[in-house]
Amino acid sequence: MKQITLLGATGSIGLQTADVIRNHPEQFSLFALAFGQNVEKALPLIHEFEPEIVVVHDEVVKSKLQVQGYRGQIYTGLDGMYEVATHDKVDVVVNAVMGSVGLSSTLGAIEAGKQIALANKETLVTAGHLVMDAAKRHNISILPVDSEHSAIFQCLNGESMKDVNKMILTASGGSFRDKTREQLQGVTVKDALNHPNWSMGAKITIDSATMMNKGLEVIEAHWLFNIPYDQIEVIQHRESVIHSMIEFVDKSVIAQLGTPDMRVPIQYALSYPNRLELHQTKTLDLIEIGALHFQKMDMDRFPCLKLAYEAGRIGGTMPTVLNAANEQAVDLFLKGKVSFLSIEELIERALQSHEVLELPNLETILRVDQETRELVKSYVF
Amino acid sequence: MKQITLLGATGSIGLQTADVIRNHPEQFSLFALAFGQNVEKALPLIHEFEPEIVVVHDEVVKSKLQVQGYRGQIYTGLDGMYEVATHDKVDVVVNAVMGSVGLSSTLGAIEAGKQIALANKETLVTAGHLVMDAAKRHNISILPVDSEHSAIFQCLNGESMKDVNKMILTASGGSFRDKTREQLQGVTVKDALNHPNWSMGAKITIDSATMMNKGLEVIEAHWLFNIPYDQIEVIQHRESVIHSMIEFVDKSVIAQLGTPDMRVPIQYALSYPNRLELHQTKTLDLIEIGALHFQKMDMDRFPCLKLAYEAGRIGGTMPTVLNAANEQAVDLFLKGKVSFLSIEELIERALQSHEVLELPNLETILRVDQETRELVKSYVF
Repeated sequence: MKQITLLGATGSIGLQTADVIRNHPEQFSLFALAFGQNVEKALPLIHEFEPEIVVVHDEVVKSKLQVQGYRGQIYTGLDGMYEVATHDKVDVVVNAVMGSVGLSSTLGAIEAGKQIALANKETLVTAGHLVMDAAKRHNISILPVDSEHSAIFQCLNGESMKDVNKMILTASGGSFRDKTREQLQGVTVKDALNHPNWSMGAKITIDSATMMNKGLEVIEAHWLFNIPYDQIEVIQHRESVIHSMIEFVDKSVIAQLGTPDMRVPIQYALSYPNRLELHQTKTLDLIEIGALHFQKMDMDRFPCLKLAYEAGRIGGTMPTVLNAANEQAVDLFLKGKVSFLSIEELIERALQSHEVLELPNLETILRVDQETRELVKSYVF
Repeated sequence: MKQITLLGATGSIGLQTADVIRNHPEQFSLFALAFGQNVEKALPLIHEFEPEIVVVHDEVVKSKLQVQGYRGQIYTGLDGMYEVATHDKVDVVVNAVMGSVGLSSTLGAIEAGKQIALANKETLVTAGHLVMDAAKRHNISILPVDSEHSAIFQCLNGESMKDVNKMILTASGGSFRDKTREQLQGVTVKDALNHPNWSMGAKITIDSATMMNKGLEVIEAHWLFNIPYDQIEVIQHRESVIHSMIEFVDKSVIAQLGTPDMRVPIQYALSYPNRLELHQTKTLDLIEIGALHFQKMDMDRFPCLKLAYEAGRIGGTMPTVLNAANEQAVDLFLKGKVSFLSIEELIERALQSHEVLELPNLETILRVDQETRELVKSYVF
């Protein structure tokens, strides 16, 4: 029985992680769950899974939970998250929080020898060198939950990294893939949230439309698999059926395919190195789909992807700036404060004004993250 | 340095195996090569690789080789093949002969503890139970050279057979895939030999057109991977880019892709469990290809595939009859004695008239093989 701490329980990945645990009560047990504010979504989970510890954002949320009659242990804030991520009884920590708040908990969990199922891109994007260094020192597997990285991880099964020619991440193209740059001028938040293949949270859906999501994935892949940027390729694949591929030195290509259901990579991260049945997801039916299409990823059409490669190659604090600027810019877009095309402009300005710091520690990363957010806001207000 | 015995050196797979050895002189050495009659093709190989032993079909071919000035050791016939397949100095035996002549050498090589790189389908189709039983007893890997089985084998890397839901073999459809059954009435040998994707020998190109090739592959997969027929699916995939796939219990699908170059699976069988560089083959370019198509495999359009599933499920000597009747029928077609559509009719008649023998030994298999060939000829002459 694997004891699981789930950070970010009420988000899209969190709820699907709960579903995976629900479907395999003989394998997984939810030891602790952490969420921010969403008491309404959290309560049914708490009642169903009866975790030993619940972590919430702050004392106000804690009170709300208690008013609802909950009498179990409640921790709060980052300290609370850290506590449940490093708790003796825990085997696996699922980091499914948004943004960089999961960073110190993840580092703590690694130091404490926990397996990490990582759905939080920012952890690797902003602190890849710290996380992977810690994972290496403590001989911990970082198990990717992202569908693309899970695909790569699965394709690497039984293979050796020295035999990898390149990794090929696929990108659906997002909600605006068929629009020209001119047509992007007037798009609304509602348009942007309408992803063709995946049903996901708002932030990541916008990131798919700007292609920043793929950019963050490229940086994540760089760290996760210790592979140079020149060996990471992105191709557009409308149907999102091939989740990613590896080309080996003998030109043999191994790919992972499936229907767009995040429970597959989530479950794989929890069950690794084994696989478990997943009856609830649809079987991939290539005959029904009929055809899979591929086209070149146009870096001029999707400048955020180019910015991500550049920031990744520069390294140091640059990816932190990329990520923080993007989070802030997307937030501003979702709140109706800036246009869709402003997102890339705000990020580019933030990157250009940043003087990179090499090998930043956690404190520096969090400081640069905060400063970048303020900077981006200052461009607008 | 792996010492290799190559059976069937002058055929299509044999020559490509030689090319793989040529490209990796630091890894592979050709200890012995066996061929039938084709002195012209064999001579350059003999001069280049200077094998310790050469095996030819008979004394006449041996004389021809000696007349050409060759002064090395020459063995003849099945005994000669057996000798080089079981020779103390040999590590890997590549069985790339056509038909069932490689059977006893392969069994001998397994008993002698050699790794087997198997390009010869008939070995498993007719004697799968004997070969796999011997391989199990001697703890020998049977390494598939067929592109489909190599694909499956690669997709199984690091995975467990208990987690396999099904194997999905892809079929290009062969040279007549776009013809109706009516249009098949008048097709010629030349038409049939024009395969859309792969450049192969005549027999296998005809087998692709009748879909018997895929039928034999289904039976081969059944033995090689110890998987029930109900878990082996065939789908039509025009581009032959995905060479085959595995669906696992969690609905995750792993596929192997590549350009149509048999050197990839040949080299993988020789280098396994490692991979080696293969500069000479073209990198798969999905953007250039643009789209991959999939459609249902129509068993009424391709009755040979249905016959193969049926013969495989019945088991015993039935697959031997399937294979022998097919070899004879294709031979008659290639010689212009029967029409294309007669191939399936002749096979079906042979199967219907056969009384199956369970768990046949090698002697029985070879006898049934011979009797079936005579029977099929008797239908025509």
